[in-house]
Amino acid sequence: MNATSPRPVVTAFDWVPDFARGLVRDLRVRWGLEEIGAPYETELLNARAPRPEAYLARQPFDQVPAFRDGDLQIFETGAILLYLGEKNVRLLPAEGQARWDAIAWLFAALNSVEPAILRLVSYDLFHTGKDWVKDARPSAVEMVQRKLKRVGDALAGKDWLAGPFSVADIAMVTVLNNLRHTDLVAECPSLAAYHARGVERPAYQRALQAQLADFADEPSQAA
Amino acid sequence: MNATSPRPVVTAFDWVPDFARGLVRDLRVRWGLEEIGAPYETELLNARAPRPEAYLARQPFDQVPAFRDGDLQIFETGAILLYLGEKNVRLLPAEGQARWDAIAWLFAALNSVEPAILRLVSYDLFHTGKDWVKDARPSAVEMVQRKLKRVGDALAGKDWLAGPFSVADIAMVTVLNNLRHTDLVAECPSLAAYHARGVERPAYQRALQAQLADFADEPSQAA
Repeated sequence: MNATSPRPVVTAFDWVPDFARGLVRDLRVRWGLEEIGAPYETELLNARAPRPEAYLARQPFDQVPAFRDGDLQIFETGAILLYLGEKNVRLLPAEGQARWDAIAWLFAALNSVEPAILRLVSYDLFHTGKDWVKDARPSAVEMVQRKLKRVGDALAGKDWLAGPFSVADIAMVTVLNNLRHTDLVAECPSLAAYHARGVERPAYQRALQAQLADFADEPSQAA
Repeated sequence: MNATSPRPVVTAFDWVPDFARGLVRDLRVRWGLEEIGAPYETELLNARAPRPEAYLARQPFDQVPAFRDGDLQIFETGAILLYLGEKNVRLLPAEGQARWDAIAWLFAALNSVEPAILRLVSYDLFHTGKDWVKDARPSAVEMVQRKLKRVGDALAGKDWLAGPFSVADIAMVTVLNNLRHTDLVAECPSLAAYHARGVERPAYQRALQAQLADFADEPSQAA
């Protein structure tokens, strides 16, 4: 454990299946830390074994990431990103309308956009080939398209959601990553260009490589 | 319009169908304002007519609520609740672990719990009776139950999610409201007791009555 680490600590899995690599949510936190040049440590959890009961005190939904900075513990990527933003103005304007625009878009990525996308992901990746998915899928796709159009429209003439690059973009770009098995982002040019701008950032690339490097080729044995 | 109002302004619909009454999200903002005794104004939108294009600048997803306080505009209920919390410590501890616990649970309500619930709501209320729903529903119910159990476990021995009552509870209680057509909350006693504590608060009751009072009996004509 890293309870006395002077560096922030992010939990991550030691292995996930290929379809999930690059999508696990610790990527968001790693990206934020990379943007502000803050060294961090990872605490890798055995993906195939039940987490110790104590982990639920850090992450009540038994997911990753949990985050620690000194004595402070935070769960939920939205909250962790907000924390990083309050520490460094390069991730979140310090005050006024600019600050609240970024916070509103941070919530929008996680509450207005991601749920529609994860419903479709669930159909495509976790219920693949089931008969009912054929009938359920069209309305789920339509909902995603409607959300993507709203975001694309809001991006008209802008590089980032809320003025300067911010935690809102870290959330939204990684939310959009979940559609990589579809053409839905590509169908919306302003959104595709936005997504490309995000993933081309050197900090994103460093974060992604760090996440991928932490995965073992094979799962460790269940405890 | 209320651009010069000295009071905060919350947008709401002038009518919704019965199944949605008490569930529209402006309730969250009204509740927060009632908790801190802050008078506010509502700006009612014609639920049956397309919103004016300008509304998208205030609420890019064309939903309610949008919020204005003086010159400041905010969308997304999570962001608006956070704003109210930063204005008044009765809704959010000012600093340290207590502040971040409440913020983490605010995001958890909106990103870890609500999406599972709204998927089930979609099946039950928007795709009622379709053949595929029969097959899709069990895994959706199971996901909701899993999330509710996590929240219920986290509430063990606690009245509220993060110590004192906070914006996290406003979000979580109103998220749970969406399950009122099911027994899923009642099946989890600690959660049912928590939900009851929330809706019994006088500020909640005032907010609910105010929302309901703003609905007309019949929809106004489409423009």
